[in-house]
Amino acid sequence: MRIAIGLEYDGRGFCGWQSQPSGCGVQDAIERAVSEIAGVQTAVTAAGRTDTGVHASFQVAHFDTEAERPLTAWVRGVNSHLPGSIAVTWAQAVPADFHARFAVEERGYRYLLLNHPTRPGIMAGKVGWHHRPLDERVMQQAANLLIGQQDFSAFRAAECQAKSPEKEMRLATIVRRGDYLMCDFRADGFLHHMVRNIMGCLVHIGAGGAKAEWVSELLTHKDRTRAAPTFMPDGLYLSHIRYPSRFDLPDIGRAPWAE
Amino acid sequence: MRIAIGLEYDGRGFCGWQSQPSGCGVQDAIERAVSEIAGVQTAVTAAGRTDTGVHASFQVAHFDTEAERPLTAWVRGVNSHLPGSIAVTWAQAVPADFHARFAVEERGYRYLLLNHPTRPGIMAGKVGWHHRPLDERVMQQAANLLIGQQDFSAFRAAECQAKSPEKEMRLATIVRRGDYLMCDFRADGFLHHMVRNIMGCLVHIGAGGAKAEWVSELLTHKDRTRAAPTFMPDGLYLSHIRYPSRFDLPDIGRAPWAE
Repeated sequence: MRIAIGLEYDGRGFCGWQSQPSGCGVQDAIERAVSEIAGVQTAVTAAGRTDTGVHASFQVAHFDTEAERPLTAWVRGVNSHLPGSIAVTWAQAVPADFHARFAVEERGYRYLLLNHPTRPGIMAGKVGWHHRPLDERVMQQAANLLIGQQDFSAFRAAECQAKSPEKEMRLATIVRRGDYLMCDFRADGFLHHMVRNIMGCLVHIGAGGAKAEWVSELLTHKDRTRAAPTFMPDGLYLSHIRYPSRFDLPDIGRAPWAE
Repeated sequence: MRIAIGLEYDGRGFCGWQSQPSGCGVQDAIERAVSEIAGVQTAVTAAGRTDTGVHASFQVAHFDTEAERPLTAWVRGVNSHLPGSIAVTWAQAVPADFHARFAVEERGYRYLLLNHPTRPGIMAGKVGWHHRPLDERVMQQAANLLIGQQDFSAFRAAECQAKSPEKEMRLATIVRRGDYLMCDFRADGFLHHMVRNIMGCLVHIGAGGAKAEWVSELLTHKDRTRAAPTFMPDGLYLSHIRYPSRFDLPDIGRAPWAE
């Protein structure tokens, strides 16, 4: 039997999603908790392998089990074995052809950026920060140039293992809410560090360091070394995952700033 | 010279605002940092003395100093001596008749409540939680009955040291945003545990345990023991402080859900 679960987590204190020999991955914590409820060692596969310090307001994972448990056991039972910074939010039985990673049709990330002269306090580690005023309208113009099927090599980390640098960016919006910028990106997939590298460029543009058209130049030259540095992970949230509608799964989470 | 500063903090890890012999108060951390910059032991007085585990998205404090420093030193300099979960957001010179506590005309608290079957993860310790569906319309009807000059003894902690239980509630709004309820309260002042005690009652009403009119009964009987238990501190934020306009100070902070 295959079970899909929805997850949210605060990425601080974990070395990213992926399981590590030291056990510091979010995956390690989830596998330990699911295995407790299943009564047997159980492997868990996630939609997106978030980096160290990156959060998820919405992550989906699946596992196979022969243990017959009510769905609430896979939610509340698993939660009782997880640290407070990780929560399972739902569980659903799925057909055997569902795969949390390979069945994904669309992923979305939100970057939450504090744009204020002084560093964060309440939201330390949970938001990015830029201290000088940013022009969100120019940033939106730049973000518009990311839309479409394109080669994103300029925003790809050297260690990226994706087969192709081509992705289809479907949504890129920059919305100001007071001293915060909410930056949303949706695509059929993302390269390693792609959102943080894009954010580095958009912040540079928003601060007046380059024109919006710089994004087009970077995309054309396909050269990571011409682009801005990778932005801090603190404000990055995996926030949306869409599967084919026949699986009938939710596609966003419950962060208070998610709507 | 008297300086006013704006503050925000994550109340976890502190034993409330007030200075303690063990040094665990938010006030202790601020006084240590301000004293570093002033070069001499400096006492700091705040608008509101938040309880253990209660946060502030907006707190105002003042101190007197003979040290001549640019205002940025009282912001960035002090921040460099504070833990990451506390931040000074602005500093302003104020006249000698300004007093952070006694000059307050209006205070506001926001309670951020997760209303979802499963416990928080990302926002653990930063939001309250109720697992059963709450009817925010009935909660708003109940909140409306709190408005006006009234005796709030039913919502007053036994240890409360206020001279009078009479307060003027000026705003009480319950707004749903997805799985969250944003509950805002503004008054000329608040009794000890008043917002958490009100939240206990509103959640009981929202869950169908009593009718909205129960609030009026409680106010009339002035008996704390008839009301609901004190709600958890996790979701409570001091969020608004208004002074006479001649001081020309900001009145709200910069939490991403503040607007």
